[in-house]
Amino acid sequence: MSSNSFGNHVTITTFGESHGKAIGVVLDGIEAGIPIDIRRIQEDLDRRRPGQSDVTTSRRESDRVELLSGLYEGKSLGTPIAMLIYNSDQHSSDYADLKEVYRPGHADFTYDAKYGFRDHRGGGRSSGRETAARVAAGSIAKQLLALKGITITAYTIEAAGIVCESVHLDQIETNVLRAPDNETARRMKERIDEIIQQGDSIGGIVECICDNVPPGLGDPVFRKLDAVIAQGAISIGAIKGIEFGNGFAAARLKGSENNDCYDGESWSNNAGGILGGISTGEQIRFRCAVKPTPSISRAQHTMDKSGKSVMIEIHGRHDPCICPRVVPVIEAMTALTLLDAYYMQFGRIGS
Amino acid sequence: MSSNSFGNHVTITTFGESHGKAIGVVLDGIEAGIPIDIRRIQEDLDRRRPGQSDVTTSRRESDRVELLSGLYEGKSLGTPIAMLIYNSDQHSSDYADLKEVYRPGHADFTYDAKYGFRDHRGGGRSSGRETAARVAAGSIAKQLLALKGITITAYTIEAAGIVCESVHLDQIETNVLRAPDNETARRMKERIDEIIQQGDSIGGIVECICDNVPPGLGDPVFRKLDAVIAQGAISIGAIKGIEFGNGFAAARLKGSENNDCYDGESWSNNAGGILGGISTGEQIRFRCAVKPTPSISRAQHTMDKSGKSVMIEIHGRHDPCICPRVVPVIEAMTALTLLDAYYMQFGRIGS
Amino acid sequence: MSSNSFGNHVTITTFGESHGKAIGVVLDGIEAGIPIDIRRIQEDLDRRRPGQSDVTTSRRESDRVELLSGLYEGKSLGTPIAMLIYNSDQHSSDYADLKEVYRPGHADFTYDAKYGFRDHRGGGRSSGRETAARVAAGSIAKQLLALKGITITAYTIEAAGIVCESVHLDQIETNVLRAPDNETARRMKERIDEIIQQGDSIGGIVECICDNVPPGLGDPVFRKLDAVIAQGAISIGAIKGIEFGNGFAAARLKGSENNDCYDGESWSNNAGGILGGISTGEQIRFRCAVKPTPSISRAQHTMDKSGKSVMIEIHGRHDPCICPRVVPVIEAMTALTLLDAYYMQFGRIGS
Amino acid sequence: MSSNSFGNHVTITTFGESHGKAIGVVLDGIEAGIPIDIRRIQEDLDRRRPGQSDVTTSRRESDRVELLSGLYEGKSLGTPIAMLIYNSDQHSSDYADLKEVYRPGHADFTYDAKYGFRDHRGGGRSSGRETAARVAAGSIAKQLLALKGITITAYTIEAAGIVCESVHLDQIETNVLRAPDNETARRMKERIDEIIQQGDSIGGIVECICDNVPPGLGDPVFRKLDAVIAQGAISIGAIKGIEFGNGFAAARLKGSENNDCYDGESWSNNAGGILGGISTGEQIRFRCAVKPTPSISRAQHTMDKSGKSVMIEIHGRHDPCICPRVVPVIEAMTALTLLDAYYMQFGRIGS
Repeated sequence: MSSNSFGNHVTITTFGESHGKAIGVVLDGIEAGIPIDIRRIQEDLDRRRPGQSDVTTSRRESDRVELLSGLYEGKSLGTPIAMLIYNSDQHSSDYADLKEVYRPGHADFTYDAKYGFRDHRGGGRSSGRETAARVAAGSIAKQLLALKGITITAYTIEAAGIVCESVHLDQIETNVLRAPDNETARRMKERIDEIIQQGDSIGGIVECICDNVPPGLGDPVFRKLDAVIAQGAISIGAIKGIEFGNGFAAARLKGSENNDCYDGESWSNNAGGILGGISTGEQIRFRCAVKPTPSISRAQHTMDKSGKSVMIEIHGRHDPCICPRVVPVIEAMTALTLLDAYYMQFGRIGS
Repeated sequence: MSSNSFGNHVTITTFGESHGKAIGVVLDGIEAGIPIDIRRIQEDLDRRRPGQSDVTTSRRESDRVELLSGLYEGKSLGTPIAMLIYNSDQHSSDYADLKEVYRPGHADFTYDAKYGFRDHRGGGRSSGRETAARVAAGSIAKQLLALKGITITAYTIEAAGIVCESVHLDQIETNVLRAPDNETARRMKERIDEIIQQGDSIGGIVECICDNVPPGLGDPVFRKLDAVIAQGAISIGAIKGIEFGNGFAAARLKGSENNDCYDGESWSNNAGGILGGISTGEQIRFRCAVKPTPSISRAQHTMDKSGKSVMIEIHGRHDPCICPRVVPVIEAMTALTLLDAYYMQFGRIGS
Repeated sequence: MSSNSFGNHVTITTFGESHGKAIGVVLDGIEAGIPIDIRRIQEDLDRRRPGQSDVTTSRRESDRVELLSGLYEGKSLGTPIAMLIYNSDQHSSDYADLKEVYRPGHADFTYDAKYGFRDHRGGGRSSGRETAARVAAGSIAKQLLALKGITITAYTIEAAGIVCESVHLDQIETNVLRAPDNETARRMKERIDEIIQQGDSIGGIVECICDNVPPGLGDPVFRKLDAVIAQGAISIGAIKGIEFGNGFAAARLKGSENNDCYDGESWSNNAGGILGGISTGEQIRFRCAVKPTPSISRAQHTMDKSGKSVMIEIHGRHDPCICPRVVPVIEAMTALTLLDAYYMQFGRIGS
Repeated sequence: MSSNSFGNHVTITTFGESHGKAIGVVLDGIEAGIPIDIRRIQEDLDRRRPGQSDVTTSRRESDRVELLSGLYEGKSLGTPIAMLIYNSDQHSSDYADLKEVYRPGHADFTYDAKYGFRDHRGGGRSSGRETAARVAAGSIAKQLLALKGITITAYTIEAAGIVCESVHLDQIETNVLRAPDNETARRMKERIDEIIQQGDSIGGIVECICDNVPPGLGDPVFRKLDAVIAQGAISIGAIKGIEFGNGFAAARLKGSENNDCYDGESWSNNAGGILGGISTGEQIRFRCAVKPTPSISRAQHTMDKSGKSVMIEIHGRHDPCICPRVVPVIEAMTALTLLDAYYMQFGRIGS
């Protein structure tokens, strides 16, 4: 399958470079006759777009989604749904200095190694901008899953080393960090403001929970539900690790502590809602490690195209902490994965 | 693609239940004319098979690999390589009590939810036994990668809460834990012996390093090299998390700390050898969280098929710490992923 | 894989309904650094578009291709190439009468059977309009194949029962039938003019030849080169049959007559350039049966959505003989198939 | 996807060379809980195996199928069904003379061109022997389709230039040609006996009909039902052409003659049961051109590995007319294609 496609029964194919004319997505495999609300797609894109607050980049892209196909009178036709987002507010000149030098922590060097020919402006396909296309498609997947009551909610559980001890889902969209606790979010913001002053960036952890997932989704061997969720999550540039349920903590536990037991009324859920690659019916829960944005304004040692050591200072508008913008992308990839698994198990999701 | 297949240019398809007649694998996409050493396949299988030591299960399966197709006069034909391992020493009667009850931490309940019809003996496809097929195929992938000097080495970096502080690759195969430090392995073993006395099991962490991987392997978007490695690793039943390079630690670092810099002679390698989903040419490095084996002999609360709460005691022969047997499986999945990426980038690997 | 995608190493994904906003294609898997001439894409689209002559429909769609991604400074980036064609000159009102009735020979009934919800205007995805997206992608494939001297040429070898006895490739684009003989084309045209007067349509046969294809392209079993060409050709709505080399005539031949022999200088080529699914290095040659366009202005007996027998008269602008417009579509599907096979065998096609 | 795999929801992967140890197939994607009758698999294999009569080869292979996985207590587990057929009665020495010379009409030359390394004994993967694996898997597909009353029947409608004018399905298995008319079969046999005397072989046409296929199977664009059936059929080595419904005859018809009309009680079926790539609910009907077997005992002009012109005489045991053995292979590929389409549309086929 094409490297720019994801999914089996439900497939997305994304296209577009960050400084090209447009980016977009073709979503294939959605059944016919399902009402799709385009405003909700735009709302999810607005959660991902730059310029939302000062913990994220000050670039202002409107990211207006344009629907090209697949709907008729507001309902899906069963045909590919194509969506387009034209690029705008590109300061391509910001990148003029970067033609001959590899930005640390970016894919500049590896793209040259792979392709030998590269659009040096803004990362091309390795830019986070590509993820807008995923969010648009994922938003439709969320609308279909919602028909069965399935919800997917991601949030910044940790940023700049500060951890949310309590989770209030209703507070996520009320603070700039998309943290599930406003008071913790305030402290995260203070710490990030200091890091901005230093011309630096900082990482965090995004947690994702899926509720009302029926048991039986997923496949037993290579397409285990957690394996595909992991592929989807790690395919987001900023993500460096993922763990399900107890995750890395399980590595230090005994079987008697980590096994899920049934007390006559409910199961414990150390597994994070997936056993043997198949959903248990309990809440699916996983966490993703988000690295600090590589674009920082501090001077760094790097290499130029000729192999020489040089200093680089990256101007332009970057994200001090990318976590709040990663949240809708993780939701999107998870929604597409769950919908694919749902179709695989049940054939269709509409009544 | 079939749920029991993995890979694009190089594909494996595995089959067989743990208590059926045989398990096996079809490896497709290997170029013609490459010498394949079947003894080395058997050696890798011997590293995975049960009965190696008392930290692993005492079941004794010889796991003799039988080659059915794809080779002629010791060299690959470019046609599918099929390999078979007949099952033996199955104590199917050990499982008679388990027909009506779901083992905690196993896929018994989820398989019933998905399929509605199940071979209750030994987990079927969810059994770790399925991974022997992966090891056989992965061993061939390692032989091909070795033609270009590429090596893949996994080891138990942590078990029972005890961490290896130093890594001596030459010690890995000289202790029963497959830890890269014999002295630490001795302490791990002592701790695990105590846990065996308690009728319990314990988790650990397996690290994997890949050397001499050329830059440019991997794909930019959904088939990022780390994304596919993650899918492969998480598709192993015991693995609950994965992290690349700094991994979850990167979530607490600043960009200036986590970015890889070039000092004129070499790059730092916080990224773990992959940037933007493409290999950098530095060592690829990742760690996998291994959960404690769910089969323990202590009594546990669980559910039977009618939904009632019952106590279960699991007899039979189980793995107190599965890490040393997971090691060759992680190597196999990683080798298959790297070979696939190599073919995608370079077309062929032989001279 | 998605039903709207085709190919393995090189993949196209098409989208768009005939009476929606736009149609388009994402072409993935093209290597980086190859110059692509957009004018030649437009030229191929002009060969397919309606309104070229009076043997084809009088609809006038400009079919301007807009390139959205994948090129930088005129060269491929190795990233997906997305192209868009906005729809125009749609007489959707022509279709108002057709909402409740199934057009004979069209996919109206089968779409309702499959999807249960349908855009009745102009056939949606079953419209020949979808093939414009294929032509755009195929034109790029032809440009890449041309780098190795590989050419693909289709033409109307028979129309309205009149057969070209001689083939002059230089005459194909000089007559409205795209027949390889101007004199025969003139007679075809006369016969078709009579059929137009009757409010009817007529079929024909399109032949395709591929020159300079190196030996070794194709795969031995399910992806035999002829098998994939056949899938691509039959996936064009108007095509009802395909035959390679001697084709159906081979069914009446003896082995001694049909086998290709070598006379010391060259091989005979009864096989049509493919043996065992793999190219021989000789000219690839196949013929496709093109059915008469189902849209005719004569009254026909059909069924309405309630299952009642009704008479239908189809107004609007249709193709008396679709062959000349099928020619570039067959070239496109064949070019994509050959390029895919070339990549599979040789990894890349640029120097 | 691997070149040795076919299908999407239901996938087969075949392996094995004709003169290797065994051939086999992994059938993946079959739902759980369906009773599978292994005797019927063997019966279909017996219809394909050599040595049935003197119009086919006198090689005698028992072709005993061995089931390795995927069934438990006679019912499918939802896991991959692996089947194995050990090779026997190979006269590998028959091929000793053929190491340095390319057999006309065989894939010897193209395999060398593609792979550069080849098992010269019996064609390897290009041998018709590979199709036994397809028949085993297809037989299971037929058993599943039968649950819904869907039947697939192929027969020799023409051989040695003699055409069956009438079709009696109950006579197919009562004559050695598998022709649907015993009297015509007798005349075919007489003509073939003459051709055997000449040391030659002869082609024919196999027709296939599918009854009780519900409307709505198939996909609208690249996976049109007829396109995938065509891929499957042309992927059988002996098949050189395919036509659906009126097929090539449609090329000479007018729209008013070829369109299917509804007379208030039933539709005509010129389309062969598929419109726009989707089943209409009418009988699916197509014909395949079968070339004369290339192995003949008459001397032929060919090329050796050094490029020199040489004479070849092929000894061994060959098929004067392969049609009756192609019949079950076409049924198998069609059954797998229909089952795949059925799953795609309806999710499952069991109750």
